[in-house]
Amino acid sequence: MEGQKAQDTRPDRVRVAYQGEPGAFSEKAVRQYFSGGVTAVPCFSFPEVFEAVVAGRTEFGMIPIENTLAGSVHPNYDLLLEYNVQIVGEVKLRIVHNLIAHPGVPLSAIKVVYAHPQAAMQCDQFLRRQSHWRVQLSYDTAGSVKHIKEQKIMDGAAVASKEAAEKFDMAIVQESIETSPLNFTRFIVLAQQGTADVQADKISIILNTRNEPGALARILTQLAEQDINLTKLESRPIAGKPWEYMFYADFEGNILEPRMQAVLDRIQSATTYLKMLGCYKKV
Amino acid sequence: MEGQKAQDTRPDRVRVAYQGEPGAFSEKAVRQYFSGGVTAVPCFSFPEVFEAVVAGRTEFGMIPIENTLAGSVHPNYDLLLEYNVQIVGEVKLRIVHNLIAHPGVPLSAIKVVYAHPQAAMQCDQFLRRQSHWRVQLSYDTAGSVKHIKEQKIMDGAAVASKEAAEKFDMAIVQESIETSPLNFTRFIVLAQQGTADVQADKISIILNTRNEPGALARILTQLAEQDINLTKLESRPIAGKPWEYMFYADFEGNILEPRMQAVLDRIQSATTYLKMLGCYKKV
Repeated sequence: MEGQKAQDTRPDRVRVAYQGEPGAFSEKAVRQYFSGGVTAVPCFSFPEVFEAVVAGRTEFGMIPIENTLAGSVHPNYDLLLEYNVQIVGEVKLRIVHNLIAHPGVPLSAIKVVYAHPQAAMQCDQFLRRQSHWRVQLSYDTAGSVKHIKEQKIMDGAAVASKEAAEKFDMAIVQESIETSPLNFTRFIVLAQQGTADVQADKISIILNTRNEPGALARILTQLAEQDINLTKLESRPIAGKPWEYMFYADFEGNILEPRMQAVLDRIQSATTYLKMLGCYKKV
Repeated sequence: MEGQKAQDTRPDRVRVAYQGEPGAFSEKAVRQYFSGGVTAVPCFSFPEVFEAVVAGRTEFGMIPIENTLAGSVHPNYDLLLEYNVQIVGEVKLRIVHNLIAHPGVPLSAIKVVYAHPQAAMQCDQFLRRQSHWRVQLSYDTAGSVKHIKEQKIMDGAAVASKEAAEKFDMAIVQESIETSPLNFTRFIVLAQQGTADVQADKISIILNTRNEPGALARILTQLAEQDINLTKLESRPIAGKPWEYMFYADFEGNILEPRMQAVLDRIQSATTYLKMLGCYKKV
């Protein structure tokens, strides 16, 4: 299992896969959602998180799905379509990005900045203001702090959390470099199977419609007629079918309600594809 | 006007602003849309393209808005909300990305790859397969070919068009590195004012709804009842209002039709915000 490191392996602990190195925001989301008694299992990539869950190597996976500044995390929307997993929960985290370097390195000495594509988007205004900086993509925020430390890169900095700076004894050159303080990421919790929980109050689906007038309106009207609130609607291009889209819809409700099953049946008959992603407790 | 270079300045030529260096895909879109007799004006950033149009320094702007592999170009959706411009046309371009280096440099010698964030997404599978490569963000595809040439970077490559390789006498190490050959980008043409053209058959709007069940369904139903085909629906987070969204809708029709004006009036009364982005000929 490349990219995953053995940590606490006590068999009684729930295992949760996440993308990144220890200190990553996803790991923080794991700690916040599963309060204690959990083993967070770092993975190299998002597909590896999905594979760990599907193969049963971990009970759960934790992935970022949406950020208030950068928008949806599209690779993960696409992976929700590809893999057979269920969403069983969600958690929201305030994200503060910091510019991190070796202790004593001033802002003026920095020439290269390592940033995750999502972090680069969230800090776009700050990073582009320093037009002489080279911004290098790194798929791991905490991992890039480790990289500039181990490689003794004295003219380099990384964009990561305060926790990552502390973990590797590195210094924060500038804190809170995200474009707006209203920077939150919503993470979702993945499992092989959903659970029928009466507490759940949110449903996520993926759907495709016939390409004809009113196709999407008819589906949304099914929800509206039952006073069901649509909380998010996202479209993604379908690979191999230019200018066609899959729609990802989140709405309030519980599949255990009889009226909800009736609504989903009517939606199914109005779609060419419908995938139930899960029913879970919203935050 | 930083970042814009004087090119052909004959006053009788239409001027079109685009982001990037000569050889950029946006410049190709300019040539394809305005066949001949046009001066393509390179700009450093997308906001500069909008500013050139708003200030009247160019008659038109050409910006990428959507790619079949990577999805929407979100910064440009946000700029359409921010700036007072109209969409007056669109053009679709097949995008082929190539790995470009100095002549004679083999694939095995490459250590760093310069890629535009959008190009990096479209070539994600190829780039991540070479796990030892450093992928460095560059906001200009053709410009990064120029950079590795001028700086004599022999272990570097750039992701750009065949035209960019030819322009700078550089070699294509590997051609067509995008994830799928069905890789198209849709560009839109911006102007200060829209024109009322009977040939136009597509309308773009931005809208915001009250956060209540059925708000979006009611708007889409207005279109459906008139047999108007919704061709795209995109949501973007609203900066400063976490978990609220602006919707960008494209649909078929012409604002000169009396029924369309009635539909738009009914949509307006169902929204908390409505911005008309333009009515133009679809491709």
